[in-house]
Amino acid sequence: MHNTAVASRIKALTFDVFGTVVDWRSGMIRDGQSLRAALDWATLADRWHSLYHPTLQRVMRDELPWASADALQRTMLEQVLAEHPDHGLQEAQRAWLAAVWERFDPWPDSRPGLARLKARYTICTLSNGSVRQLIGGAKHAGLPWDAVFSAELFGAYKPDPRVYQGALRLLQLAPEEVMMVASHVYDLRSARGHGLRTAFVARPLEYGPGTTPEQPAPGEFDFSVNDLEELAGQMEDLAT
Amino acid sequence: MHNTAVASRIKALTFDVFGTVVDWRSGMIRDGQSLRAALDWATLADRWHSLYHPTLQRVMRDELPWASADALQRTMLEQVLAEHPDHGLQEAQRAWLAAVWERFDPWPDSRPGLARLKARYTICTLSNGSVRQLIGGAKHAGLPWDAVFSAELFGAYKPDPRVYQGALRLLQLAPEEVMMVASHVYDLRSARGHGLRTAFVARPLEYGPGTTPEQPAPGEFDFSVNDLEELAGQMEDLAT
Repeated sequence: MHNTAVASRIKALTFDVFGTVVDWRSGMIRDGQSLRAALDWATLADRWHSLYHPTLQRVMRDELPWASADALQRTMLEQVLAEHPDHGLQEAQRAWLAAVWERFDPWPDSRPGLARLKARYTICTLSNGSVRQLIGGAKHAGLPWDAVFSAELFGAYKPDPRVYQGALRLLQLAPEEVMMVASHVYDLRSARGHGLRTAFVARPLEYGPGTTPEQPAPGEFDFSVNDLEELAGQMEDLAT
Repeated sequence: MHNTAVASRIKALTFDVFGTVVDWRSGMIRDGQSLRAALDWATLADRWHSLYHPTLQRVMRDELPWASADALQRTMLEQVLAEHPDHGLQEAQRAWLAAVWERFDPWPDSRPGLARLKARYTICTLSNGSVRQLIGGAKHAGLPWDAVFSAELFGAYKPDPRVYQGALRLLQLAPEEVMMVASHVYDLRSARGHGLRTAFVARPLEYGPGTTPEQPAPGEFDFSVNDLEELAGQMEDLAT
């Protein structure tokens, strides 16, 4: 289907947040260095993030009990720090660092892009982050969400079908009226599998400088853009 | 406890919406008159609203199956119109009118008051309206919620304990860190029973001119104000 016809039916955009809208890696390094500059926070951040998907998958396989993303992040951080017994961080410092998920900065285009998209569409998070992380993170980063949808509301983590179907149910919209926006191919493929429209956003710095960014096949998703201002511009052009 | 000590612990405000933040009665009359000016829309609006609490109570007593507020409002509207068989409204007009719950205007103080409160606190809805009604209504009225919490998320309607406890769980806050803001005494009494702080907002025009507004006993709630700008001012004064 031509993109004009696709875009004309879309009423709401659901956004992955960590990586897609905010820069988790720089935030982890920033707050880690503020606690103890001597540690290699780029390596620690990458290790911490590497535990994310495997831990959520263990929850979804019932190998771990359901827990909010805050509690899981705290456990993952302790696991990382246990690998560096000389870390020297006190309990209160570790608790503060685990809450860095509420303090990530937006990519430069996120705020202006979301403001433009909000003028035409309902814009919601659809994230594995907890409601608390998403509210706190939006206040920190100045993100103008119409609503905060979290895996926590649906008792399942992406890419579980319950998350995408739960968002459609709460919005009371048909799948083709909702577009998932993410920098992660696995998320968009699952969303597409439930009939949602999809927009891929390239975030070449998500995993740090010198890494190979995710790259979908040409035409795999309805939109493929370099940032959220470009997405807003393309959708504005199609609507006129 | 003195209000300074109360206010210093508060981190989030949860708001009743219909009546407290937006003016449902004028909106019903406005949209009804735009469809058919000859009908007595003040009387129809009051009749429609009179079915609200009894219908939600029937759901909570399991006399009606769980349904979203949108579906229940449509049913109530049909019940009202069936009492006036000469209403002359077509199916599409009735569906549009039932969705007036997404099109209510704010009271004049709501937008500026919420903007001031948002600068210091997390501000969320905690309403019996559906997520869809609350999102649409916020876009219509320009309400800057940090999050939209609805009875729909908790599978229960206020004043059921699950609604207040569900908000505390999602916010990950203690009861004394959250204040319920409402123009309805029944809502505030239930919130207080679960340990939340409470703010009563007088809305003397909620039920129309010439009606007797709700009036709590002096000191019954932590705050009692005439509008949301007054609440913001009092909380700003206590914080300095």
